Order: sequence, then C-alpha cells, then structure tokens
Amino acid sequence: MAGLRSLYKDEAEPGLKSNFDVDYVIHYKIPTQDTEKAEAEAAFIQLIKALSTVGFATEVRNGGKSSLLVFTKIASDKLLNNQVYRSRLQDWLYGVRIHAPNQDVNKYFEDEPVSEAERLRLAYLLITKPRNEGGAGINPKTGQWKNVSSIFPLHDHNFNRQWIQQWSKKYYLEEGDITQIRDRFGERVAFYFAFLQAYFSFLLFPAAFGFAAWLLLGQFSWFYAIVNCLWSVVFFEHWKTKETDLAVQWGVRGVSKIQHPRPQFQFEREAQDPVTGEAIRVYSPFKRLARQMLQVPFALACASVLGGLIVSCFAIEIFITEVYTGPFKQYLTFLPTILLTIFMPTLQTLLTQLAERLTALENYETHDAHQASFVQKIFVLNFITSYTPIFLTAFIYVPFGKILVPYLDIFQLTAQKFTAQGKPLPTKSWEINPDRLTKQVIYFTVTAQIVNFATEVIVPYVKRKVFKAVEEVSEKKNGNGDALKQQDLPEEADFLSRVRNEAELDVYDVTVDYREMVIQFGYLSLFSVIWPLTACSFLVNNWVEARSDAMKIAISSQRPIPWRADSIGPWLNALGFLSWLGSLTSAAIVFLFNSSKQDGSPWDISAWGLLLSILFAEHIYLVVQIVVRNVIAKLDSPGLQKERAQRFQMRKQLLEQTFGAN
Amino acid sequence: MAGLRSLYKDEAEPGLKSNFDVDYVIHYKIPTQDTEKAEAEAAFIQLIKALSTVGFATEVRNGGKSSLLVFTKIASDKLLNNQVYRSRLQDWLYGVRIHAPNQDVNKYFEDEPVSEAERLRLAYLLITKPRNEGGAGINPKTGQWKNVSSIFPLHDHNFNRQWIQQWSKKYYLEEGDITQIRDRFGERVAFYFAFLQAYFSFLLFPAAFGFAAWLLLGQFSWFYAIVNCLWSVVFFEHWKTKETDLAVQWGVRGVSKIQHPRPQFQFEREAQDPVTGEAIRVYSPFKRLARQMLQVPFALACASVLGGLIVSCFAIEIFITEVYTGPFKQYLTFLPTILLTIFMPTLQTLLTQLAERLTALENYETHDAHQASFVQKIFVLNFITSYTPIFLTAFIYVPFGKILVPYLDIFQLTAQKFTAQGKPLPTKSWEINPDRLTKQVIYFTVTAQIVNFATEVIVPYVKRKVFKAVEEVSEKKNGNGDALKQQDLPEEADFLSRVRNEAELDVYDVTVDYREMVIQFGYLSLFSVIWPLTACSFLVNNWVEARSDAMKIAISSQRPIPWRADSIGPWLNALGFLSWLGSLTSAAIVFLFNSSKQDGSPWDISAWGLLLSILFAEHIYLVVQIVVRNVIAKLDSPGLQKERAQRFQMRKQLLEQTFGAN
Repeated sequence: MAGLRSLYKDEAEPGLKSNFDVDYVIHYKIPTQDTEKAEAEAAFIQLIKALSTVGFATEVRNGGKSSLLVFTKIASDKLLNNQVYRSRLQDWLYGVRIHAPNQDVNKYFEDEPVSEAERLRLAYLLITKPRNEGGAGINPKTGQWKNVSSIFPLHDHNFNRQWIQQWSKKYYLEEGDITQIRDRFGERVAFYFAFLQAYFSFLLFPAAFGFAAWLLLGQFSWFYAIVNCLWSVVFFEHWKTKETDLAVQWGVRGVSKIQHPRPQFQFEREAQDPVTGEAIRVYSPFKRLARQMLQVPFALACASVLGGLIVSCFAIEIFITEVYTGPFKQYLTFLPTILLTIFMPTLQTLLTQLAERLTALENYETHDAHQASFVQKIFVLNFITSYTPIFLTAFIYVPFGKILVPYLDIFQLTAQKFTAQGKPLPTKSWEINPDRLTKQVIYFTVTAQIVNFATEVIVPYVKRKVFKAVEEVSEKKNGNGDALKQQDLPEEADFLSRVRNEAELDVYDVTVDYREMVIQFGYLSLFSVIWPLTACSFLVNNWVEARSDAMKIAISSQRPIPWRADSIGPWLNALGFLSWLGSLTSAAIVFLFNSSKQDGSPWDISAWGLLLSILFAEHIYLVVQIVVRNVIAKLDSPGLQKERAQRFQMRKQLLEQTFGAN
Repeated sequence: MAGLRSLYKDEAEPGLKSNFDVDYVIHYKIPTQDTEKAEAEAAFIQLIKALSTVGFATEVRNGGKSSLLVFTKIASDKLLNNQVYRSRLQDWLYGVRIHAPNQDVNKYFEDEPVSEAERLRLAYLLITKPRNEGGAGINPKTGQWKNVSSIFPLHDHNFNRQWIQQWSKKYYLEEGDITQIRDRFGERVAFYFAFLQAYFSFLLFPAAFGFAAWLLLGQFSWFYAIVNCLWSVVFFEHWKTKETDLAVQWGVRGVSKIQHPRPQFQFEREAQDPVTGEAIRVYSPFKRLARQMLQVPFALACASVLGGLIVSCFAIEIFITEVYTGPFKQYLTFLPTILLTIFMPTLQTLLTQLAERLTALENYETHDAHQASFVQKIFVLNFITSYTPIFLTAFIYVPFGKILVPYLDIFQLTAQKFTAQGKPLPTKSWEINPDRLTKQVIYFTVTAQIVNFATEVIVPYVKRKVFKAVEEVSEKKNGNGDALKQQDLPEEADFLSRVRNEAELDVYDVTVDYREMVIQFGYLSLFSVIWPLTACSFLVNNWVEARSDAMKIAISSQRPIPWRADSIGPWLNALGFLSWLGSLTSAAIVFLFNSSKQDGSPWDISAWGLLLSILFAEHIYLVVQIVVRNVIAKLDSPGLQKERAQRFQMRKQLLEQTFGAN
C-alpha cells in the first residue's frame, strides 16, 4: 500500500498539479490505413466544429500512438450558468427540487453554487446530447464518431491524494466523507460508497454476534439463523430508508424519472406521445417482450454450462480426494482446480458478452432500463457461479452422497481404459465428509475474498507497471517516446504525458463493485449459519474494500463521469431476493445438519420436517419483514422530514402570497 | 321490491319534493330531567351562536319526542365560494390538484362548478372543524355537545327516486352511474360502488369458468384451483390500478394525505412540529404501541370464544346427525343451529363493542388511522366467524375424523346422566361424510347470502314499518302526533314530518358493506375449489347487492356525509391477504381431496406431499403476482396518462413563461 501511495508524493509527477481548467478530454484514434484516414480526418473536423458550435473551447494535442487528444472546456461562464439554470429548472418541474430557481441569476448562484460534479455532468451532457436538444451529439464509438475512443474528465489529483490519505488513516467513514465523493464523482459513485459504509456499519453486529455464536453455540445453530435473518431484514429495510434519505439530502430524489435516452436505441416508427403530444420514437413492446423471453433460455444455458462445469469438477474432486488412492494422487488433487481456473473465467467472459448482446438486442430507450436489464442477467450469472458449489455440498452431496458417490465409478472405468494393464484402480471405502461444507464456506468467504482483492487491485497495478516498463523500453529503442516528449511544449510536457496515461486507463464501472458486495451479502444471508465467523471476515474485507475501491477510482481508472442517481437501482431487488432466500436456506441447513450432529449423517431426515421448517421460516421472515417495514416507516427519517418541512414552507409562503393578494 | 319502490311514487309523500335549500339538519335532544334541561338549553344557545358566527343561517323547529331540529344553511354564496377556493387551493398545495385555482374567482367557478357533494362536505367541515381553524367546533355527542344527537344532510329524494328506478332497470352499471353517486354522496361511497361493480364484472369470468368446471372437471380440480388463483391475482392487481385511475379521474388522488383530526383524540403534551414549526398535540407512540399490543390477546380471545362456540356446535352437530340415533333426534338436530343463532350474534356484538373500545383506547390522531385500526379488528372477527366452520371440516373433521369422533362419546356420557335409567344412548357405527364439506360451502355461499340480504334489507324495512305503525297508534292515543303536526305551519308540515323520520334513521356505514364483499371474496378465493358454482351464486347476489345497497342508502339510512377517499383503504390489505391465503388453502384442499376420491377417505395422506404442494402453490402465486403486477404497470392506465399529460402541460407552460420572461 505504501508503495501505491508513493504515486502521490508531491515530487513524484509534476504533471499532476493542475488540470489547466480542462473539462473533458476527447481521445480520438486515427486509423493507420490510408483509406480510412481521410474519413477520420473529415470526421475530426466535424468534431471540432460540433464542439465549438455548442460553445466549447478546444485545444488539440498529439495523443501518441496515432491518436489525438482534444481538450475541451465550456467557453463562457454564461453558457455554463445557463445550462445549470435550465437543468435545475427541469429538476424543479419534475419535482426533484422543491424550490424553483430564483429569477435573479447572480444572487442565485451565490446561494447555491455549482459543484464540480454538476459542472462536469452538464458539460458531458452538452457534448453527448442529440443536436436537436442543443447538444453536440458526440457519442464515443457510435456511427459518425466511431473513432472517438473515449470522452473523460481529468482527475483532480490534489483531491485524490488528500482523499486516499484521509481514508487510509480513518477507521470509520463519516457522512462528510461520502458528501465529498458526491461533489467530485457524482451521486452514482457516492451511493456505492454510502451503501458500502452502511453495510460495513451493519456488519459490526453480526460480526460480534457471530463470534459469540461461534464460541458458544457452534455451527448450525437455529438461534444464530434466526438472529441472522432478522438482521438481514433490518439491514435491507434500513437501507431502503437510508437511500431515500440520502437522495433527499443530496437533492436528487426522483432523478431516476429524468431519463437519458440511449443513443444506440433503434426505433421502428415515430408516434405521438399521448402525454406530451411530441413525436416520440417507438419500438414495439411485444417485440421487446419476445426478446426478453430469451432471458429464460439464457438463464438455463448459464445454469447448465456453469452448473455442469461445477458439478463435473465437484465430482472429480470427490472421486480423487475421497475415493481414489492410486498413483499421482497428490498431483491429481489439483486437477479440478485447474479445470475450474481454465474454464470458469472463459465461460464467464463468454456468457457476460452474451448477456451484453442480449441486453442490446432488447433495445431499450433509456440507459437506466438497459442497465437494469443487464444487471439482472449478471446477477443470475454470478448467483450460479458463486453459490452452486455450496448448494451442491449442502443439499446434494451430504444428504444423498451415499446414493450418488458409487456412480462416480464412471471415472474409474474411464481411467482404466487409459492405464496399460486395464487393472482396476485402487480405491478406498468411502464416508461422507461433513467438514467439507464448512471448508467450502470458509474458502468462499475468506480465501476467495482475498484472491478477489488481489485480482482487483494488485494484479492490474503490477500489470500496468510491467506494460509501462516494456513500453518505455520499446519506445526508447524506437526513440518514439522521447520524440513525442520533445514535440510537446516544455510547460505542457509533464501534463500531457499524464493525460496520455489517463487516456489508456479503464473506465470505472460501479456495477462490478456493487456485484461484489451483493454477492458477499448473499454468502452472509444464505450460508453464514454454517460458519458464524463469516461476518468477521467480511468486516475486515470491507474496510479494505472501501479503500481499495477508492484507490481504484483515483489511480487505476479514468475519472468517472459524475452521473446522478437516487438509489442503488436494480441491486436493491437482488439484495431483497437474497435476504428472503436466506430464510429458506438457513432453515433447511439448520434442519438438515443440526439434528444430525450426533451420528454425522443427515440421511435419515424426514421430508415433511424439512418442508415444514422451510415453510415456517419463510412465513416468519415475511411477517417480520412487514413488521420491520412498518416500524421503520414510523421512525421519521431526517431527510424526509427536511423535505416535508421545505414543502410546507413553500406552501405556507404561497398561501400567504395568494391570500395577501386577494 | 315493487312495494319498496312505491315509497317513491310522486303522490306518496308531498314532503319529499324539496329540501328548502337546507344544507344540514342538527338533531338536538332535550333531556327530560329538569337539572340537565337548563344546561342543555344553555348549550343550545351556544350552538346557535356558534353556527351563526361561522356564517350559517339557522331555523329551529320542533323535532318531536323532546328534541329540536336545527336547519342550517351556509348564509352567503361568498362564504361558500371562499371555502371552496380555500379547499381547492389546499388540494393544489398537497399535490391533489394539478392546477392552482384561477385568481379570477367568478370565471373559475364557471369553469369548475361546485358539486353538491363538495358543498355538503365543506359545510360539514365548517360545522365540525375546531374553532381555531375557523369552524364552529360542533361534534355530535362529545363534550359540550353531548345533546347533539346527529348532524345530517337531507336526502334529495327526486334524485334518489330516479337513481333507484334507473338501476333496477339496468343489467350493468356504467362509469356514469358511479360518477353520479360521487357527485351526490362523495367519493367514499362512490368507491364502494365502483369496487362492487369492478368485482361484479370480474365475477363473470369465474362464474362462466366455474360452471364449465362444475360440468366437466368436477370438484377439487387442480386446474380450477390454478385458474381461480390466477383470476384472484389479476383481479386484485387490476383493482389497485383501477383505484388509482378513478382517484385521478375524480381529482382526489392523494386526499388521504389531507387528514381530518379526530375530536376524541386526547393528547399528553404539546410539542413543536419539526416540519411545520406549529404547536401539535402529541400522544406517546410507545403508549399507543403498548395498547396496540392488546390486539394480540383480543385476537386470541376472539379465536377462543368464537372458535370454541363453533367447535362445540360442530361437535354436537356431528354427534347428533351422524352418531346418535336415540329419541328426539329430529328435534335435537336443530340444537346446534339454535345455540349458534342465540350465542353467535350476542358474542359478535360484544366483541365488536370490545373492538371499538380497544380502537378508542389506541387514541389515534386522525379519523383514517382510527378507522383502519378498527377495520383490522373487524376483519379478524369476521374471518373467524366466516371461515372457521369450513376450515374445521376440511382440515380437521375429514382427515382426522376417525381419530376424533370417538371422543364425542362425552356427549353420550353427559346425556346419560340426565336420562332416568342411565342406559347407554343408542348410537350407530360411523363413517366420515365427505359431502359435508360441499354442503357447508353451499350453505355459506348461497343460503347465508340470501339470509344476509334478508336481514340487511327486508328485516329493517319491516321493523321500521311496524315501529312506525305502533308509534302512530300510541301517538293517536296520546294525541301527541297530531298536536305536533298541528303546531307546524301547513306549508312545512309534510316536510317536517319527513325530516323527523330521517332524523330517526340509521347512519349509513360503508364499512359494513365492504366487509360483506371482502368476506364474500374470501369464500371464492379460499374455498370455491370445493364447489365451483360459487362464483355463479355470487354473481346473482352481487347484482341484487348493488341495488339493495343503493336502496339502503336512499331509504333506510340518513344521507351519508360526502367524504372524499382515494381508495377502498384498509380493505385492500384484507383482499390481498385473502387472495394469498387462497393459494395455500386451494392447494391443500386439492391435495387432500382430489387424490382421495377413489376411496372416499383422505386419511392416508403424506404430510410431505401436502407441504410440498402448499409450498409450491404459494411460490407460484408470488411469482405470478410479481409478473401480473409488472404487466399491469406496463399497460398505461388512462387516468395516470391524463394526469401526466396535465402535469406536462403545466410544466411546459411554466417553462415558456420563465424563458419568455428571461
């Protein structure tokens, strides 16, 4: 970590100090083929024209590797203020803001200054909005702009340095820390950190209780299961309120109603909007429904492909570790892990691409609808890969192992064919290994989290360092890099080299981080009754997670575009689903394993007992949920209270004005 | 019916023709004891003063039987218009109305005239609102006004006559018919008729399908059960949309936010409202919660008292009809019915009073909260009395009868003590009677509905006629009645005698009618798989129900105060609950009885099969509910569309104004 932070030593890179008031950088690739070059150059001129028409000042510099960097900035304060005013007026009309913007513009901007996030968001909208709505209509990698590889704001490295330093010294993040994020990176990113922080605080309880339960109650305790379910209900319902609360506090409640159209949307026909009377672009909802139906085969495909892989590896593993005693056992043990490591990421990547394709095929009008549909598919994918192994062990291997394992002889028969003598392979008599379940849960909740951290933070960092080194060596060889640097004006050189770096960075995708947290919550809700220390592991992990995510944004990603949001969006449903499912799995696990502790084999279970406990647990869960929801609704949230107070003030004022005037 | 309608022959009662522009009649009882008389007279003077202070013109007449009738009318059009304007302005500020009232008052009232319901509602509010809010603060039967026995508007008998005549000739009520109700009796009553009508239309499908199922599938068909559940989901979700739709159309969407304080509310202390900064009256929510907790023992008491009675009668009935063969069997058969007829209404009345007391004890600030809490208790009460007998037969008597019936010997032993010889009573060997269940369902869905209609409409009518006759006879004897009539001015005499009649009528309580319909829906959802013709019976019943309810309002009740409402309120939850429970009971009944058709006894059931089918059915139900909800949400409702269009127009106008002004 110290090594990472050295990036931010003052003397390290002089180019980090200032952004020269640049709002956005447009990275424009110039194709190497001559045929395309002319077209690209024409489009580039169009680009500059489009930008200056809507009021951007532009400067072009060499971007290296046959690309250009266009530095843009909203040319006049008046244009900016006009944009802000329009946007806030729209907010007011949609009910997002309570007060209409003051007519006296100068005083208004003194009272409610424009945050950096707001300026950058509006600048981005100005660049990307369609021309008929007053924008420049530039969308990366689409149509005319296929050579625009990215449009990104520049990091404020002074802020980033301070941010990382502050957070790495703090045990606990406060509201102010989140608000800081919001002002720089917009509400969408801020909501992620707010969620992470709320989740972290809520983890304190199950961590402490889980530790106590681990000491006193042991595994498979029904008491732990009940408390854990209760906790997840309270957390879920609390977050829903907290979310609204934050949205009100940040003045974004209801922004999800203001939708941004997806430029990729293809319409079938134009029609008149029954509401606004304006011409709108329509895509048949039945066609979309038909395409959405493809989600069912998609889910089945995911389940069979990924599930098949997992089941096969699982079977091989059991055969090798618990039945097989022949030669090379010590090497063969690694076979399933190797198979998984090779095939799993490949399959996942393929299926994610498929999910992207499917979502694009569903052809949504708006970004949010597109994103929600994509998140749904990703959740299905991750649900299968993350939880299937434990489900298999808990509900197939342990109860039905005695029936199923003998069928694993198929491996033996297959293997025999390849042995020269055709002799039967040596095997041992077999017993169900009930520790397997616990080991698996520990693997997923501790080891996998650490591995995940490594792949997320350390690997990209090392990779980039290595690439950089290789690049520098090759550039030195060709003399290219120095040439580029020598072309730059000396006062810009450091800055430009830094911007060229940022242009190469990944785009930060908050979905990935949400996914990680939601899947983690799932382990806690579904399986922590197997190993009550789960929450302790997550508590430590999430402390690090918040910091490493901050670092990821600050160092290894382009600065995110500061979108607004009024909730964590589609992930909320995923959380609710996992919390509900937790009541079922916990009840089933407790019933299966708690009663069977004595003889070590839960085979002699009564099906009706199992079903009754699931039925019971689920209904208690649903009742508790209703009760908690009502209690939380009764406790007034400060955000909603503030909103009501503001609305009341406005009403009172209006009433006084009207009846004074009468 | 023809006899009832004769009430409305033109020549029948000349006093019905006009209301002399009276808004409300206040019925003031004068106590007969001299000590109280003076106090009552002083309060009466206060009453007249209070009324004239807020702007009512009053006329006092003799009400007969030591009471006075105060006829009130809003004195000036200006006052009325002012009230309407204020109320509409408040609506706009609370977001109920989309457009602010026009400043030009005269033109405004031409564009949006005041309906009768609106005028009467505002007049009532003016009479009852606390003084500090500009009302006269007169609430019947409370504090200073304990002698005010009722405040009621006068029926518009011309309208009523037309209404009843129209409806009795129509097969199907249309939207216009409901709107008519709304303009006269307010949205709360109109919502009941709208619900009844929507339910009636939706019943057409299960009636037709049920008839077909009865012919082709027989009883206990799983296919019928699935279709029935699906139907109930669709109906429930459709009604939720329809409700919003109507609320928008009637311009009352969100009026439930504008709460009327309950005058009986007792506060502990005054505090400052965090929202408005005004002084508000506070009652500790913890104390209220503690009192709400009393609902649990209340529900248990209901269950044990009513359940005990039902179980006892059930046991006696089985013993007598199916085991006992001794003397007086033909008379003893009626014993359980007699016991039920005597004890059930008494117990129900007692428990309803207890529920009222409990709700009053919970001390709610607003009418709506009070009403919702009361409805909850009434629902529990009715749930137990209505469904316990069938639950007993389906889930106790048939499956466990062979074990339990032998214990009924206790009756035999008890009876032996009373027989002179102490000989064992003659009994017969016993078989479970599976037809019992069907017979019971038919009883509750046909016979009970008819009985209910009789007690609701015919009995009160006959009772009133008889009372009236008795009264007239006794008055003729004393010469009182004639004296009263002779005191009246001849041109008022008919009118006054009619008003004296209306003063004696019951207050119309829409809760009673809702309860009836919701409980009926419950039979359909929970048990119609036992007898698929259920919906046919209900279809006929509800056609009559709508007309008889109309008649009840028009003839046997005081004209209801035209309150507003934006939904059917707490009954919605009851509907949802019954619809959900239906998925469970239907699955259980089909599982228990369908497989057992061959041998007539479902005793050899497997518990896990039963549980699995319930679990399955419930989850399918929940999934279907989510799907239906999403589909219905996608189908744009005309009401919401209209609202959005209006909002958009308003926004556009405002934007144009602002940017035009800029």
